[in-house]
Amino acid sequence: MQVIKQYIEDNKQRLLDELFELLRFPSVSADPKYATDVLNAADYVAKKLTDAGADNVEVCKTAGYPIVYGDKIIDASLPTVLVYGHYDVQPPDPLELWHTPPFEPTVRDGKIYARGACDDKGQFYMHVKAFELMMQTNTLPCNIKFMIEGEEEVGSNNLGIFVKANKERLKADVVLISDTSMISMEHPSLETGLRGLSYLEVEVTGPNRDLHSGVYGGAVANPATVLAKMIASLHDDDNHITIPGFYDDVTELTTAERAELNAAPYDEEEYKKDLDIAEIWGEKGYTTFERTGTRPTLEVNGIWGGYIGEGAKTVLPSKASAKISMRLVPNQISEKITQLFTDHFLKIAPKYVKIKVTPHHGGEPVVTPTDSIAYRAAQKAIAEAFGKQPIPTRGGGSIPIVALFEAELGIKTVLMGFGLDSDALHSPNEKYDIFNYYKGIETIPLFHKYFAELSNV
Amino acid sequence: MQVIKQYIEDNKQRLLDELFELLRFPSVSADPKYATDVLNAADYVAKKLTDAGADNVEVCKTAGYPIVYGDKIIDASLPTVLVYGHYDVQPPDPLELWHTPPFEPTVRDGKIYARGACDDKGQFYMHVKAFELMMQTNTLPCNIKFMIEGEEEVGSNNLGIFVKANKERLKADVVLISDTSMISMEHPSLETGLRGLSYLEVEVTGPNRDLHSGVYGGAVANPATVLAKMIASLHDDDNHITIPGFYDDVTELTTAERAELNAAPYDEEEYKKDLDIAEIWGEKGYTTFERTGTRPTLEVNGIWGGYIGEGAKTVLPSKASAKISMRLVPNQISEKITQLFTDHFLKIAPKYVKIKVTPHHGGEPVVTPTDSIAYRAAQKAIAEAFGKQPIPTRGGGSIPIVALFEAELGIKTVLMGFGLDSDALHSPNEKYDIFNYYKGIETIPLFHKYFAELSNV
Repeated sequence: MQVIKQYIEDNKQRLLDELFELLRFPSVSADPKYATDVLNAADYVAKKLTDAGADNVEVCKTAGYPIVYGDKIIDASLPTVLVYGHYDVQPPDPLELWHTPPFEPTVRDGKIYARGACDDKGQFYMHVKAFELMMQTNTLPCNIKFMIEGEEEVGSNNLGIFVKANKERLKADVVLISDTSMISMEHPSLETGLRGLSYLEVEVTGPNRDLHSGVYGGAVANPATVLAKMIASLHDDDNHITIPGFYDDVTELTTAERAELNAAPYDEEEYKKDLDIAEIWGEKGYTTFERTGTRPTLEVNGIWGGYIGEGAKTVLPSKASAKISMRLVPNQISEKITQLFTDHFLKIAPKYVKIKVTPHHGGEPVVTPTDSIAYRAAQKAIAEAFGKQPIPTRGGGSIPIVALFEAELGIKTVLMGFGLDSDALHSPNEKYDIFNYYKGIETIPLFHKYFAELSNV
Repeated sequence: MQVIKQYIEDNKQRLLDELFELLRFPSVSADPKYATDVLNAADYVAKKLTDAGADNVEVCKTAGYPIVYGDKIIDASLPTVLVYGHYDVQPPDPLELWHTPPFEPTVRDGKIYARGACDDKGQFYMHVKAFELMMQTNTLPCNIKFMIEGEEEVGSNNLGIFVKANKERLKADVVLISDTSMISMEHPSLETGLRGLSYLEVEVTGPNRDLHSGVYGGAVANPATVLAKMIASLHDDDNHITIPGFYDDVTELTTAERAELNAAPYDEEEYKKDLDIAEIWGEKGYTTFERTGTRPTLEVNGIWGGYIGEGAKTVLPSKASAKISMRLVPNQISEKITQLFTDHFLKIAPKYVKIKVTPHHGGEPVVTPTDSIAYRAAQKAIAEAFGKQPIPTRGGGSIPIVALFEAELGIKTVLMGFGLDSDALHSPNEKYDIFNYYKGIETIPLFHKYFAELSNV
């Protein structure tokens, strides 16, 4: 432990500088205009893995953005940890809301402000540096493999193909991911599960052209109004989702599980204050933790139609569209939910409009068994680094590839996240606390240590 | 009549070329980036008025875009016609749907395709050329004044101030406007009224920042969903508008008036085919003509919120907005309706969001008495030029300044429009038939002739 702290102390500034360099790549995978930057970010990750002491480093081509691989096999008889992360980031818009440029990392009272600071550059890079630390201090207790992809924010479409094609190379005993959050540094927590995802885009078409709202208004169905009515109908008055069969596969938590989940500290006034909302919202009969962790949801991620420019245009739009995503919980199946949504949306469409539903991407929900060696190793590592036992939590986000690893590689994943819900992931002014960054680099070697120890028992 | 036809024949190409030159100015008043083009269009109009023989031509400054004035007073004892029109146009977007550039007029099978071709450059310019014709052939039978503004598409905010300040200069016996449409060239028609307008923008704010839809989804109200529910609630199942008091001032038509209105030719199959819709829509208990001409409406002109770019972004948006306009009929009052909407919208807002309502602009509905000298003069002119009596119709659009002229100058307006509903006003590929353009130039001098004759009776 002392060795770890000393190494971090001796390299404090450099560990930060290298992360800043990584954050300066605008590696936005959703927008083609950043293609070159995404590729440059991949090359940087490869170089840093090599510098840290990794062997077999390769920027592996895919149909989309490359996957960076690297490993260190010290002894085939020792257990192997597969570290996963992603070097791509969410689009930075709305740009005007950033206090400092999204791709020029800026420190304000101990926090690093930049797109990707927490999700996931700041978090996966802790593993690269923790690996460097273990190499430099000769404390690497097991084999380690890295797989850092560049399409997580757009559905990891090519990762599945890569994993299927590289089962031998990726063989490991556990997948370790830092791409989630803790309750707080005072209340360290450890994910026991994640929600799945079904993401679609819908388009409602009325007349074959934008119309003058004076000449046609009142006589032709307005697709924006129709879309509004259709979206409005997807939740009932108790905020239950109205899609037939939507809840069929949902596993309800036991009273004990609910109690444990709700034991985590939660200050509703703080929660509302942080978001500047007068009231929380959600499915009737559930707490905030249950709503975000254990219940499926349906959210409008984007909506547009008609004239959205400066000033006024008296138009009756031809089309209106929306991006809609649903978070899924065990045992919902992404493909099945996508189908249920599509069938329902087409069914409720009035006959004076045409509907197009386009599935974007999906992912399955996962649960991490708390009695596994890997989970217990993570518990011990956090307990030692933070001085207190982590609280088990259910994550609301989705990391579709966790289910993929389970299915293809037959191994479980440990979600050891060091972010905070207040890190504004996917929002303007995303940040990551410098404290958390160093704390992660400090905790990760302990995980490897305990994982090796417990595996040998 | 022969003189008129001959003059048009002798100048056919030039009359078209000059209009094309006018159409090439991208005089979009709603978007500041076109400011210079709007001003250039004003100068062009002034030059053409002078060339046509007008006196006292002036590009009159206002707080916004200038108003072009010009006149020809041949004898103070003769009646005076005040011609109104506007040289500004609607924004051209969505640009990608235009088959040819909006500001490069292109002729395809007898139709001029360009933004403003019909609304209103093509139509007001007929008056400039008809004036030239009367000057050149010494047939101007009365005094004429021109007032061509540049802010009609954004609410004519400065016209009212100008009119109040120039009552003497604008003194006239009738206002003549060509900014509306006919049923068809086979079925010439003449407006007997227009709808008013109340245009607002609403903004729904939820959390103070865009949120990760996984971390917060299901626990925080989504402003896009809230806006959808609010918009959905503005019409009931019979498509009546649900705003309390909205219909209080509406004058219902008499059975006779409804019969006359519905006597106009209407082919529903043709109507649906033209718009490519399977069903028409509208307020229960009314025909299409009644819905567009005599009933108030509420339309979403634009809606936006969250991520509307390429690909997928799993965000729970902080804000969602919509542009909403209501068409008003006699005796609804724009300001009152704006207030009713605002009060209602704030009232139905759930407490977990904040609402901002911003009025854009409005205008009052008008009715033209069919027994007036001016209306009868227009009837005779159309009857002579088209060889058949015009059908009286109610226009669905709004020309707010008609009510203004009545209030400030104490004179009625004649709406002698030569457009067609199929001209795609405010839409991509706006067009104006060359036939209608020439037909207008032919009809206008007849209006002046009959207006002078009937006035002297």
